[in-house]
Amino acid sequence: MAKAPVLTPQAEDFPRWYQDVVAKAELAENGPVRGTMVIRPYGYSLWERMQAEVDQRIKAAGARNAYFPLFIPQAYFEREADHVEGFSPELAVVTVAGGKVLDEPVVVRPTSETVIGELMAKWVQSYRDLPLLLNQWANVVRWELRPRVFLRTTEFLWQEGHTAHATSEDAAAYARRIAHDVYEDFMVNVLALPVVVGRKTASERFPGAVNTITCEAMMGDGKALQNGTSHELGQNFASAFGIGYLDDQGAQQTAWTTSWGVSTRMVGGLIMGHGDDRGLKVPPRLAPIQAVVVAVRDDDAVLERCRELAAELAGSGVRAELDVNVEVSMGRRVTDWELKGVPVRLELGPRDLADDAVTLVGRISGTKASVPLAGVGRAVADALDAQQSEILSQATDRRDSRTAECAGFEDTLEAARSGWARVSWDALGREEGEALLAESSVSVRCLVRPDGSLPLADSEPDLVAVCARAY
Amino acid sequence: MAKAPVLTPQAEDFPRWYQDVVAKAELAENGPVRGTMVIRPYGYSLWERMQAEVDQRIKAAGARNAYFPLFIPQAYFEREADHVEGFSPELAVVTVAGGKVLDEPVVVRPTSETVIGELMAKWVQSYRDLPLLLNQWANVVRWELRPRVFLRTTEFLWQEGHTAHATSEDAAAYARRIAHDVYEDFMVNVLALPVVVGRKTASERFPGAVNTITCEAMMGDGKALQNGTSHELGQNFASAFGIGYLDDQGAQQTAWTTSWGVSTRMVGGLIMGHGDDRGLKVPPRLAPIQAVVVAVRDDDAVLERCRELAAELAGSGVRAELDVNVEVSMGRRVTDWELKGVPVRLELGPRDLADDAVTLVGRISGTKASVPLAGVGRAVADALDAQQSEILSQATDRRDSRTAECAGFEDTLEAARSGWARVSWDALGREEGEALLAESSVSVRCLVRPDGSLPLADSEPDLVAVCARAY
Repeated sequence: MAKAPVLTPQAEDFPRWYQDVVAKAELAENGPVRGTMVIRPYGYSLWERMQAEVDQRIKAAGARNAYFPLFIPQAYFEREADHVEGFSPELAVVTVAGGKVLDEPVVVRPTSETVIGELMAKWVQSYRDLPLLLNQWANVVRWELRPRVFLRTTEFLWQEGHTAHATSEDAAAYARRIAHDVYEDFMVNVLALPVVVGRKTASERFPGAVNTITCEAMMGDGKALQNGTSHELGQNFASAFGIGYLDDQGAQQTAWTTSWGVSTRMVGGLIMGHGDDRGLKVPPRLAPIQAVVVAVRDDDAVLERCRELAAELAGSGVRAELDVNVEVSMGRRVTDWELKGVPVRLELGPRDLADDAVTLVGRISGTKASVPLAGVGRAVADALDAQQSEILSQATDRRDSRTAECAGFEDTLEAARSGWARVSWDALGREEGEALLAESSVSVRCLVRPDGSLPLADSEPDLVAVCARAY
Repeated sequence: MAKAPVLTPQAEDFPRWYQDVVAKAELAENGPVRGTMVIRPYGYSLWERMQAEVDQRIKAAGARNAYFPLFIPQAYFEREADHVEGFSPELAVVTVAGGKVLDEPVVVRPTSETVIGELMAKWVQSYRDLPLLLNQWANVVRWELRPRVFLRTTEFLWQEGHTAHATSEDAAAYARRIAHDVYEDFMVNVLALPVVVGRKTASERFPGAVNTITCEAMMGDGKALQNGTSHELGQNFASAFGIGYLDDQGAQQTAWTTSWGVSTRMVGGLIMGHGDDRGLKVPPRLAPIQAVVVAVRDDDAVLERCRELAAELAGSGVRAELDVNVEVSMGRRVTDWELKGVPVRLELGPRDLADDAVTLVGRISGTKASVPLAGVGRAVADALDAQQSEILSQATDRRDSRTAECAGFEDTLEAARSGWARVSWDALGREEGEALLAESSVSVRCLVRPDGSLPLADSEPDLVAVCARAY
């Protein structure tokens, strides 16, 4: 009798496969209040690694971390017309506190442009105070009607950057810098997701933005996931909150602001962007556990050598874990490490030991080889590099093979059944074509140049629309 | 005419001095909703360093980070009688979300014992699942009637550890381990606050705990600050939430739990525990900026050498900052670096350069010396070590000189006007004496052994009460 698969196969039911991975790899589960989630230790360790990598890039881009309140006066939301319209349906409101009904209800932040705008107005006085580059790591709340763990939850964790600039050009350049140097760099080189960086169409912009740059990743079922966004807010929030400054001529000016964020949604992107029927595949540069040393059998010499090996790898900077849990069957443990997507597995049993060797298995490449114990440090380092390249090329190959060059509306709709369509924005019929696609749940994920690069303006000629169904 | 002091002198008005430091060093300010705070970049960088140091120690103690929801069903709070009584007056409640009145209001977490208890009950089945050691970094909300930035705010940031154990002994030992190996070690060796680690009296325990271990620090005005606590929760939460397990004999048992936390309140403790009339003093091991290289004057050779020096220090692992902001007067910049408490300042001007030297100023020791540029790396490393020892001995000397050995109620009351009193718990009159002290706003901060160490039980003989006024 064939062994029952641990996970629902992707080809059978992709959404159920996703739920199975989240549960079986012990990544997260639903919280008691509808739409909330509990992030379990292994899931959280993936997020911690994402935070560390993104935080380092944000700091390199000159922004400084700060912290703004969870609670925002409801009236703040009414100051920017598009913003209030966009967020009102999703707000959670505290009306009772300290045993009393509040005179003024407070909103649990869905995003912090408003409260940060209020504070920036105090802090910015002169052109010398600009640019003001801030970021915060925080939780935000958006009441979700159709929640889905990591992808769309009532509460999620994220970073939100907020900056103020003296000129439109400076704000636009910084929003692009974040999209490229922070998000795209992290997503491609660490997460190994070959994102397309493009401009959102007007209907898909952040409420209150004049331009939204998005990083779109292809998932295993050919759908798109918006994995991070960077917004030019023009002077909308600066005007609403009075962020003004005296320029070097002594004239009063209004500032230009940006905001940008990535969230725990990226954990969902990691799962669906790389996983297979055996579970997660985690790129080595992200992996909280890069290599696991597995003792095949309960044997003193084997256990001791495994301990030495794990310590040796940790000493050389590999995030290594030791599995000497020999009372559990080897098959079950291997299944579990595969499920968790650990990129390199070193199996050591009495036969390996007799050969002065260890069996090195690559989760991403699927390769298995006997490696001399003497040179194992170098072999693991090489294997990690190889797995990192391999996972990016697997994801890039899939994205490219499932992206069709289309000529107009009909073939775009057809291509978006199973992947992405690239079509001339003009040939699609621009906003009208976009509205028609929406009737079939297909959206314009972003606009790019013919060579795939980021356009600087909606008015550029020959824009290409990347169209897909999306999470 | 004498220059007006930047800060209200401590001796004149300590609470105003505190507010001045918070504002002028740009640490934090009030948020728009009563009792909330905005943590500004420099204040947040102090918290980030605290987080990094505490997180490392928590992981070394075997606990793993996870994340639990901000929103908790109101009904959960009613399951543990002391807990609901303790927290009810402080809860913030969401009653409206997604545009509708909720059928069941949800509480914004004031602490997470309840929701984590609910999840632990699912995860713990067998003795093999124990101990379960979890921690989360999160924001919590307690509606405060008399808020004070960092010390008592409606929303604050903290870590809360939550663990489940098979036996009372194991839970008690872990609560002590956290108090000593995580909190005391961090507070003494990094924060340089010589905390007294003791047991809270029954009236001061966490709501729902059977024992609370506290780390009490003396502030500059002789008052005490509870800087962190570790609780044994007995079986109170395990019974209320059904955290049970099958023991190795197959019998059903109830688990024993602990919880423990430190918060942004520690930033207040850092300010008031070390600051002087010139501002903050930050211990080098904590300091986000350990050494600042200050160009005394706008001179190309000086600026270039300053840049090299800052880069050299950063390269050798010092958290170094460069100040070439020469359009601002040297006096004002020095005042500002003193205000921010940067432990080592290197001043370099044309005369220093001519001597191939730099002027090294210790913020904590108040020393100033010319140091040859050739050996400056070593000199800075030595100075940082010296400032770290010096700040701990300053704080220890103050604590010891302002702690009086008392014989009974009257002299305890007198001593607590300006510092701490140590008095036999029996001679004080135990709970009765404690209640009398409370009438004069003096509290028993904790019970210790005569040698100052942590008692294992309230029933130990010869307990000493440490009494003080407190924040």
